Amino acid sequence: MKIALAQIDIVAQDTQANACAMLNAMEVARFQGVQVLFFPELCISGYLVGDAWERHDFLQECLQQGERIRDASGEMFVVFGNVGLDESKIGNDGRIRKFNAFYCAHQGEFLFNSAVNFEFWPKILLPNYREFEESRYFFDLRLLAVENDKLLSSYVEPLRIAMGNENIAFGVGICEDGWSADYGLSPYNILSQKGADIFVNLSCSPFSLGKLEKRVSVFGNHAQKYTKYFLYINGVGVQNNSKTIFGFDGRSSVFSECGKCIAEGAFFNSDLLTMEIFKNDANKLQLGVLSNHFQLPELSKVEQIYLGLCAILRETLKQWKINHVVIGLSGGIDSALSAVLFTHILGRDKVTAVNMPSRFNSQLTKNAAQLLAQNLRIAYAILPISESIHATEKELKNVVFENSSRSLYVNTLVCENIQARDRGGRILAAVAASLNGVFACNANKSETTVGYSTLYGDLAGFLCPLGDLWKEDVYALSRYFNTEIFKSEVIPAAIFEVKPSAELSENQDVMQNKGDPLCYPYHDALFKTWTEKWNRWTPYDVLKSYHEGTLAAQIGCELSIIDGLFKTHSEFIEDLERWWRNYVGMGAFKRVQAPPIVGLTARSYGNDHRECLGPFVFSQAYIELKLKLLQNSELIN
Amino acid sequence: MKIALAQIDIVAQDTQANACAMLNAMEVARFQGVQVLFFPELCISGYLVGDAWERHDFLQECLQQGERIRDASGEMFVVFGNVGLDESKIGNDGRIRKFNAFYCAHQGEFLFNSAVNFEFWPKILLPNYREFEESRYFFDLRLLAVENDKLLSSYVEPLRIAMGNENIAFGVGICEDGWSADYGLSPYNILSQKGADIFVNLSCSPFSLGKLEKRVSVFGNHAQKYTKYFLYINGVGVQNNSKTIFGFDGRSSVFSECGKCIAEGAFFNSDLLTMEIFKNDANKLQLGVLSNHFQLPELSKVEQIYLGLCAILRETLKQWKINHVVIGLSGGIDSALSAVLFTHILGRDKVTAVNMPSRFNSQLTKNAAQLLAQNLRIAYAILPISESIHATEKELKNVVFENSSRSLYVNTLVCENIQARDRGGRILAAVAASLNGVFACNANKSETTVGYSTLYGDLAGFLCPLGDLWKEDVYALSRYFNTEIFKSEVIPAAIFEVKPSAELSENQDVMQNKGDPLCYPYHDALFKTWTEKWNRWTPYDVLKSYHEGTLAAQIGCELSIIDGLFKTHSEFIEDLERWWRNYVGMGAFKRVQAPPIVGLTARSYGNDHRECLGPFVFSQAYIELKLKLLQNSELIN
Repeated sequence: MKIALAQIDIVAQDTQANACAMLNAMEVARFQGVQVLFFPELCISGYLVGDAWERHDFLQECLQQGERIRDASGEMFVVFGNVGLDESKIGNDGRIRKFNAFYCAHQGEFLFNSAVNFEFWPKILLPNYREFEESRYFFDLRLLAVENDKLLSSYVEPLRIAMGNENIAFGVGICEDGWSADYGLSPYNILSQKGADIFVNLSCSPFSLGKLEKRVSVFGNHAQKYTKYFLYINGVGVQNNSKTIFGFDGRSSVFSECGKCIAEGAFFNSDLLTMEIFKNDANKLQLGVLSNHFQLPELSKVEQIYLGLCAILRETLKQWKINHVVIGLSGGIDSALSAVLFTHILGRDKVTAVNMPSRFNSQLTKNAAQLLAQNLRIAYAILPISESIHATEKELKNVVFENSSRSLYVNTLVCENIQARDRGGRILAAVAASLNGVFACNANKSETTVGYSTLYGDLAGFLCPLGDLWKEDVYALSRYFNTEIFKSEVIPAAIFEVKPSAELSENQDVMQNKGDPLCYPYHDALFKTWTEKWNRWTPYDVLKSYHEGTLAAQIGCELSIIDGLFKTHSEFIEDLERWWRNYVGMGAFKRVQAPPIVGLTARSYGNDHRECLGPFVFSQAYIELKLKLLQNSELIN
Repeated sequence: MKIALAQIDIVAQDTQANACAMLNAMEVARFQGVQVLFFPELCISGYLVGDAWERHDFLQECLQQGERIRDASGEMFVVFGNVGLDESKIGNDGRIRKFNAFYCAHQGEFLFNSAVNFEFWPKILLPNYREFEESRYFFDLRLLAVENDKLLSSYVEPLRIAMGNENIAFGVGICEDGWSADYGLSPYNILSQKGADIFVNLSCSPFSLGKLEKRVSVFGNHAQKYTKYFLYINGVGVQNNSKTIFGFDGRSSVFSECGKCIAEGAFFNSDLLTMEIFKNDANKLQLGVLSNHFQLPELSKVEQIYLGLCAILRETLKQWKINHVVIGLSGGIDSALSAVLFTHILGRDKVTAVNMPSRFNSQLTKNAAQLLAQNLRIAYAILPISESIHATEKELKNVVFENSSRSLYVNTLVCENIQARDRGGRILAAVAASLNGVFACNANKSETTVGYSTLYGDLAGFLCPLGDLWKEDVYALSRYFNTEIFKSEVIPAAIFEVKPSAELSENQDVMQNKGDPLCYPYHDALFKTWTEKWNRWTPYDVLKSYHEGTLAAQIGCELSIIDGLFKTHSEFIEDLERWWRNYVGMGAFKRVQAPPIVGLTARSYGNDHRECLGPFVFSQAYIELKLKLLQNSELIN
């Protein structure tokens, strides 16, 4: 039996385009003699469609496009993910009952799943963490079992496909069904008990750093544990939940019975993996890979960031029909990388850089910005903001109020933010609009964590490509561009060497080596414990670890850096509380109005980092530990 | 047995303040001889705490504060909502297993729930719709039943409280347990079968228009169906999920056995409802209300909006420690209402109004703005933007690019948006910062739906108080202020009479009765079908209804208005597609960066309106219906 995995490009909500992509893949597969073809999870609707599931018209459209696939199936068995409806029942939200399901089309009909009496097979486990919120929309087999006082296993059946003498039971699960470690039950265990000959998993699984390794281990383990081949199929493309943009990296895989990955689909590209399966005399399933896909080379972290980020940006710009991107080029590392990325993707004609110096900007950074634009050969203009800033400040100082004796006090911080907003909200927005384009937000994850940016200023923009990269990643990717992509110093050395600084006041004068109040090697490591750890740390956990002398090791920061920063416990605590307050306070407040962020880590801001705005109180445990520490000798050593 | 419902103010995440509020209520109740005291759901942690549930320190803090309540219980039985942990198990997210639960403290101990072997009673039904996402954080009894192959009912037990000769079984559920219509099982039915003498529901239920009536009907029905008294207890206060601010309106209620509401707690205020219960000779529970709370008067829609919005704003400003609000006062109805609201809440000294005319602003609206400020006696300044706009336009036109022959084209739309951003991003932000305050965003729900606003311009601000009010509601609330609150024409008549307009170009000249492209009576009704209907409409549903001649009746808009707007099917369709594209396109894009919105309707923008950005395709069904309509005679009549 010749089977294949069709790793197609899926566009959220674009049911017609997705059905076309499927029909094309079916044609290619048919030409290659494929008899059973597998598509990813929810490949007609797309996965991240928000509350579109509440639109009856959308549901009907999904079914209608599914019927197009069914009608075109011919002799091929076509297995694909789509929504399944039980119109006789409601879901827990009171709307028509929906399942995240797969169908198998053959000879213009859908195979019938008698275990549940539907013409589809529902997903068993629904994820509700990170950006996943499937219980918001879908009913699942566990709830069905409770509703009918039945055992879950009675609803689970392999997909049995008979062809001539061959009769193969495909144990097909959908995405989370394979990630069952936290659910106290294993769908693949049930499928194995029900006689599955081979495992299949239809996924639509967002890319994040480190996920690939986990995926290989999770699916390899299923294969090994049950000594069955495991076919993992994942879509490609870009989808978003409006606040975060996720990439889908494909890399569909075949795992042998001993759990080894023996073939992989392309990374972030459509692909078709074909293979031959048959049962030997001992009724044991054998599999031979036919396509020329073997294991892809291992990718380093920065390579994954490079490939992932470029793929996501390229597809996002295409989907959003964006033809021109304007960058505020300051001469710092973030805007430099932003300019490099968009130029790399769109080409030099579709990127415009603007340098907007005030009196606080050094010749060093101004020169560096200009040199980078020259190296990239992108349009570059200098629009000084001093006059405009001066006019605004004067206007504020001279304002006379009626009905009140009030006057305005324009302090340094107010002036800093006026500069930032003059650049973002006044110049960049207008330049972008004049070019019928957009402007980018260059904020990185470190700044976004603690709100070290100005609303309507440097936090403005159509998209935040670096919003899920810590400062160290920004440097690493910039170096990667110079050494591996350009193979020359396109990003000038000065940009790497200058002290990171907003250059908004004399206190941020890079010529005196002044700049950001963050010591990135330490603070990034600290911030990661608050945002990216599975069980998120609070100041209590930090202080406990510090108190126990394990902080440096636990957060992965050199001890000498921490020791160099703080002379006393009191200094350590003051810094900790300062940034924590910024993280849960002003930072959270600003994130509400931040642009969409490209998600790359296991935890990006946006829908995968739900928060509330309001008073934060330190826990009793923290307060007690802090008092204990402060009562001890003030000097650390 | 003397029992009471403590309707306390709950602050999300402020465990210590919440525990104090509980201890205070316990003191008052003790003084009144109360023997059993009920508190709302999750009253220690707060309900909308986002991913704080992933912080171990936060969980421990919740338990620790719960132990304070336990230790202070004395002879009183204190029933309260708090997180329950099963540290020996994990939840479906792989973290420590958490339940949304209630505890009963007595004599310094927690009563033991032998049905589940915990010292707490877990919630049975978890809501996952609208702003609710409890399965993201909590395990529930249905999952426990599947996990252990048991019947759900075996885990459900009333809370049995014995006191002298009296022995009463309280059938206590938590919030959604009472809203069970969509779940195919009823927790109160099970509790009744298990011998409950009286029903109790601990809630933390956000306010929205129309919910009160539903609540009375849902809980009254339980009482009537099982002929048992039903005690509903709800917290008060304001909580948010960062994108949407929700009010909790209290209004705890006692329903008699025949389903009639016989006593109510205060609306948006703390309260204590005391009552006496006992069993008569026939072992039937009797209840007498002791406190002076009887049914509150019925509130009209605009009264509910007034009371809800003011309560939410007042508490939000307090929680966020905001002492000064700046309003861009244009002379239109939205900014007028915004100024009135903040002045009403903060007092005249803490509000500053700024009028920022360009050459397109009429004397009519300028005068109206000034008069309103005078009437409110708030500080008022005029800061014309013509010069600044001119300077920006000139700067753009003269810009010379290096590495390119590019030049900028500043068209009318670009100029309109430059004006809006000059007001919001340049002036208002700087004035607010100079006053150590914030500025408000005056966008209403109609504008927010279709993105009829400028990012970093009139869509900027710390909060959007009118973001869940349609234009008609904005007018209604403004009239209400004049007639019921001020009892004089504080908001000048001209503001009600002038054509709604952004006054950003000659095409929006109110003196020629030109203005917004929206006909609010029709478009608001149309937009509601897309956003507020339980099964949301798409253009297909609209066109179907239009085709069938039922549109006006179905959306609640006068037929003559629709007939007056469109001369042909083609005009109707063009308008429909224009605004739909704006709703799912630019509108969605702008909502990502919109300020937090005060939620008042059954569906507000933010977390209760999840969407994705990207290509939208009209369904096949829509396209076919459209072609059919267009093929018919072009003229409607």
